Amino acid sequence: MNFKSDNIVGIHPQIMESILAANQGSEPSYGNDSYSQRLQEKFSEVFETQVSVYLTSTGTAANSLALSALTPPFGAIYCHDHAHINTDECGAPELFAHGAKLVPIQGLHGKLQAPAIKEHISAARALRPHISYPSTISISQATEFGTIYRLDELQALAELATCYGLNMHMDGARFTNSLVTLGCTPAEASWKAGIDVMSFGATKNGAMAAEAIVFFNQALAQDFDYRHKRGGQLISKARFFACQFLAYFENDLWLKNAQHANKMALLLAGIFKSQGYTLAHLVEANELFVQLSKKVAAYLTGKGGGFYEWGGPDSGLYRFVTSCFTSEAELDILDSCLKQMPKL
Amino acid sequence: MNFKSDNIVGIHPQIMESILAANQGSEPSYGNDSYSQRLQEKFSEVFETQVSVYLTSTGTAANSLALSALTPPFGAIYCHDHAHINTDECGAPELFAHGAKLVPIQGLHGKLQAPAIKEHISAARALRPHISYPSTISISQATEFGTIYRLDELQALAELATCYGLNMHMDGARFTNSLVTLGCTPAEASWKAGIDVMSFGATKNGAMAAEAIVFFNQALAQDFDYRHKRGGQLISKARFFACQFLAYFENDLWLKNAQHANKMALLLAGIFKSQGYTLAHLVEANELFVQLSKKVAAYLTGKGGGFYEWGGPDSGLYRFVTSCFTSEAELDILDSCLKQMPKL
Amino acid sequence: MNFKSDNIVGIHPQIMESILAANQGSEPSYGNDSYSQRLQEKFSEVFETQVSVYLTSTGTAANSLALSALTPPFGAIYCHDHAHINTDECGAPELFAHGAKLVPIQGLHGKLQAPAIKEHISAARALRPHISYPSTISISQATEFGTIYRLDELQALAELATCYGLNMHMDGARFTNSLVTLGCTPAEASWKAGIDVMSFGATKNGAMAAEAIVFFNQALAQDFDYRHKRGGQLISKARFFACQFLAYFENDLWLKNAQHANKMALLLAGIFKSQGYTLAHLVEANELFVQLSKKVAAYLTGKGGGFYEWGGPDSGLYRFVTSCFTSEAELDILDSCLKQMPKL
Amino acid sequence: MNFKSDNIVGIHPQIMESILAANQGSEPSYGNDSYSQRLQEKFSEVFETQVSVYLTSTGTAANSLALSALTPPFGAIYCHDHAHINTDECGAPELFAHGAKLVPIQGLHGKLQAPAIKEHISAARALRPHISYPSTISISQATEFGTIYRLDELQALAELATCYGLNMHMDGARFTNSLVTLGCTPAEASWKAGIDVMSFGATKNGAMAAEAIVFFNQALAQDFDYRHKRGGQLISKARFFACQFLAYFENDLWLKNAQHANKMALLLAGIFKSQGYTLAHLVEANELFVQLSKKVAAYLTGKGGGFYEWGGPDSGLYRFVTSCFTSEAELDILDSCLKQMPKL
Repeated sequence: MNFKSDNIVGIHPQIMESILAANQGSEPSYGNDSYSQRLQEKFSEVFETQVSVYLTSTGTAANSLALSALTPPFGAIYCHDHAHINTDECGAPELFAHGAKLVPIQGLHGKLQAPAIKEHISAARALRPHISYPSTISISQATEFGTIYRLDELQALAELATCYGLNMHMDGARFTNSLVTLGCTPAEASWKAGIDVMSFGATKNGAMAAEAIVFFNQALAQDFDYRHKRGGQLISKARFFACQFLAYFENDLWLKNAQHANKMALLLAGIFKSQGYTLAHLVEANELFVQLSKKVAAYLTGKGGGFYEWGGPDSGLYRFVTSCFTSEAELDILDSCLKQMPKL
Repeated sequence: MNFKSDNIVGIHPQIMESILAANQGSEPSYGNDSYSQRLQEKFSEVFETQVSVYLTSTGTAANSLALSALTPPFGAIYCHDHAHINTDECGAPELFAHGAKLVPIQGLHGKLQAPAIKEHISAARALRPHISYPSTISISQATEFGTIYRLDELQALAELATCYGLNMHMDGARFTNSLVTLGCTPAEASWKAGIDVMSFGATKNGAMAAEAIVFFNQALAQDFDYRHKRGGQLISKARFFACQFLAYFENDLWLKNAQHANKMALLLAGIFKSQGYTLAHLVEANELFVQLSKKVAAYLTGKGGGFYEWGGPDSGLYRFVTSCFTSEAELDILDSCLKQMPKL
Repeated sequence: MNFKSDNIVGIHPQIMESILAANQGSEPSYGNDSYSQRLQEKFSEVFETQVSVYLTSTGTAANSLALSALTPPFGAIYCHDHAHINTDECGAPELFAHGAKLVPIQGLHGKLQAPAIKEHISAARALRPHISYPSTISISQATEFGTIYRLDELQALAELATCYGLNMHMDGARFTNSLVTLGCTPAEASWKAGIDVMSFGATKNGAMAAEAIVFFNQALAQDFDYRHKRGGQLISKARFFACQFLAYFENDLWLKNAQHANKMALLLAGIFKSQGYTLAHLVEANELFVQLSKKVAAYLTGKGGGFYEWGGPDSGLYRFVTSCFTSEAELDILDSCLKQMPKL
Repeated sequence: MNFKSDNIVGIHPQIMESILAANQGSEPSYGNDSYSQRLQEKFSEVFETQVSVYLTSTGTAANSLALSALTPPFGAIYCHDHAHINTDECGAPELFAHGAKLVPIQGLHGKLQAPAIKEHISAARALRPHISYPSTISISQATEFGTIYRLDELQALAELATCYGLNMHMDGARFTNSLVTLGCTPAEASWKAGIDVMSFGATKNGAMAAEAIVFFNQALAQDFDYRHKRGGQLISKARFFACQFLAYFENDLWLKNAQHANKMALLLAGIFKSQGYTLAHLVEANELFVQLSKKVAAYLTGKGGGFYEWGGPDSGLYRFVTSCFTSEAELDILDSCLKQMPKL
């Protein structure tokens, strides 16, 4: 019962098969292979519009390179103060975007609100050029707290962006988990909601190492091949990364994987709630944030449970993540542990 | 009665004379002139220890280059969320320090508190290498709100820095204003209080364009000549900048200028307080933050008053800055204006 | 008969098996998995000294991140003017090393000579700080022209580096190809010859995407985990990359692959030479540079031959690369084509 | 008789007077003063077109910031291999242009030739995105060897730039020296000859610290205020820098100063030539490169002569620079020294 993250698991069999199948003969290197070519079409089909796609081997690179295409070095990127790009990527966005400034903004349940951003934009305009140029809004979907922006919430941010000429980036490391909850089309959840560029992750949902930077706004993709190469992400045998995505989209594997993970998260939430534990946020994707005493946490760890303390040593909050490989058996074990827990 | 800033005024006559006097014959360029050599000795004498000094023409460059010597590109700089380096330098620290991450932290009256910083350090250590490396604490003395860290407050930060191996930077754009209030020696207010490197400003206190990066910790100055040149701050006719500082220290001009500015600030505070206005912070240097209604602010502006709204359009807060050139006559005019103000 | 590069081929079966075998259960992410741990030991064993190893998914990232650990932002990297890092990585070293300066130096057959480097160092020392700080020597082994530095040539560069306090980097994208020609131990060909850090490539020799930054000089590895993460190269499911190297070293697969590629290159050289064609450089690894008329080149292309024109449109030079998958049958086809070529 | 450089001398009296005169009352800071406003008009008038001008305190900053506006971080800047930006600015262009790649190209007498640049562009286009994006041509006028591009030579480069969509930058540290030799208008020597942006220096021609980035191509100036501030070059008391240029243009001071320096250089050349010494390049501005034996050089140094060895310890070449302050008396002394030199 390891709920540490959705990246501790392996590769989904269908994706592994795709890698095996791609290992045939020679293919042009550096993304000129037939798999990479088909990838462009496949993504365009999935998102119902012409997109430009660039692959990376990490989400860190996907986010950071995407932001570098949206933000000049003297620009500001508005993000939630708990955004992964702000807190967990060791300054990678600052490296790839050449010192562009991340402006962390607070917001309930991991969500940015338009008025808070607008205040920053106004200050920057009033004091030009002393404050970094308002360039980009970056949101995580699902958020770092496992919640989801609803379409109208995205729309409100997009209107602000349009009004002030900002670009919209979505960190979609768990986009698919949000998509199956939203129940809309990929297009509706992305470019139709104002997103210019998305970091679209598959690794946390069954792939080996497959992240894609998807440009809905094609103008922003101009010359991006240079950034991609220079960022150390133009893989020579690219076919073995492109083929992961081809399998990912085949027969709705991506959606099925996310549906399963989300379902497991809801079941897990039910287990905790039925035994009186409090959750800090709605469970809308595949992450839970549970209030536990240190004793309960230690007990579960002792029983082999894997999960992280979250938000500092005194927060009392613990994160549990489910994946496409999480089994109901694992949930049952956790349930039993809780039920059999002695008075602590 | 212009209280917009302490950089709207001109050059102090004694400093101008020094520039005129330096305009004699040839001198080696790029800091190898006799004035620049004497400068090193003068600063070492003033601070009662051997220091390394590098001149810059702006405070932005002084702060940013200093931080680049203290912080690796993958490092974190902990600063107040209203720190000048975080809000008013358009990302210059991120440029010069190669994308090092500024971590803004809240604190009352513009001051950083050790416990809040410690929390960030602990999180970074626990999640290494996902969070930027804890490298540097940067404080402004006087703070952006015209308050002053007391020596014991500096000591508390210095102990934290020592404990965790961080470097301490002081943005001393208004160091002299703080010094005369503290009433201690320059040494006590800087390296004896744990500061490794200071951005020491003279421009706001009577110079033309004279900022100095002062290394108390000489180890950190190693190879800094390269950063200084590469940062575009190695001025060819350096004597005309070094000589400003030589005059600045002559006959305590720096201290007298700051004493005057501070005194004017206290008088101005008295004027406002005596008429029932509230000040948001203690007046400990040469800045005031006064609570005014929009009508009163507009009235004063109409009368020729110069000052800035501060902290956003709805804060109701206005900043007034005095300088070494502020006259009592100007204060009297403001006093009269307030007294003769019609009911608004 | 495709000789375009050694990265157009697929994954060696033994390496693919290793990936399949690693796809079992959960493993800690971000390099804390058991495969990554064993990797450190394996590399240390192979190189007969304690090394620190960091994996990347591209050679571009390996080279650039390695250089960033050896060179301060204000430093100079001396390299051959045809070095891959100088001509084929779109400025990636400049990105990751924060604008450090590549100083291209000419040299016969792709090799750097100590005296030419020494001249640059002397100039830099004389004009400090106007010229970038002499920091690093970077060489490619095998070189971009398929030649190999002999041990005494490496030693001469290492002595210069030691004398002036420079670091030595080896771009070992084809290190194994050079190693089997040198006929010495990996240790003798690297750290015993003065190399501080190597970019050790496996992708061009049978892996999927496996490049390693190997620190022989452990002091230089300090805090490198931060650079690795920040560079977007800390892969979450790292086991699938570590396992490639484990298979690579198993049963001398790496050496056998390189021996095969080199042998094919020699045979190919023999074919060209026996028919009167000139080679521009010695064939010491798995690359040939053949002098061809445009008509001959076009004829071979028409017959399905894959290879690149090299050194500009008027050089008359064409590069042929062999790999661990090149078959004698392919060589035979080329041989026949040449023999049956009509008078052009 | 100090001919080390044109920046060892002081400030021209008319420029010093202008600084003194500007020291009156308060002025808005950060370039919003009346002097800075007039500066824009004055430059536009001098160059007979609407320009945007930004001041810096060093030529290093002027060149580097200008290049950052013309070149994306993944771009290439083609320059002479002896260009100041390549050899004497410690990597400042790489810092300010975020790691853009300087591509050094050889050329006689310090001049770039279109065909050599074109070769680089062609290679980059053929191998996109592996080679840095062809962005900018940067030339020095006068060149580092004191020679001058003729208008038709500039035109040839401009045509290449236009043809391939590159920007043209001129390092005009000694532009005025070239202008008086060319005998054309400032407009003809700059934007009419295809220059998009110039670093226009006054410091080497009599100012204290006054360099200007002049945008002829206004589109490239968009958002440059941000780069200027972030680069640490937005001086608070900007009036004292703007006023230097106002005096510089007054009564043709700039042209007179340059005419004088150039005339002195020609006289000095005459002295050397009349005594049988060889000059390595034409004397077209205010620099000479004289072939001297080490003994003669030592003799002159012993007599108090100031000049630099140039091009390495074995070149036998020495640089002499004249300035607006060089006197005929100094030349006479040198002449006498040479004439009275004992047989060495």
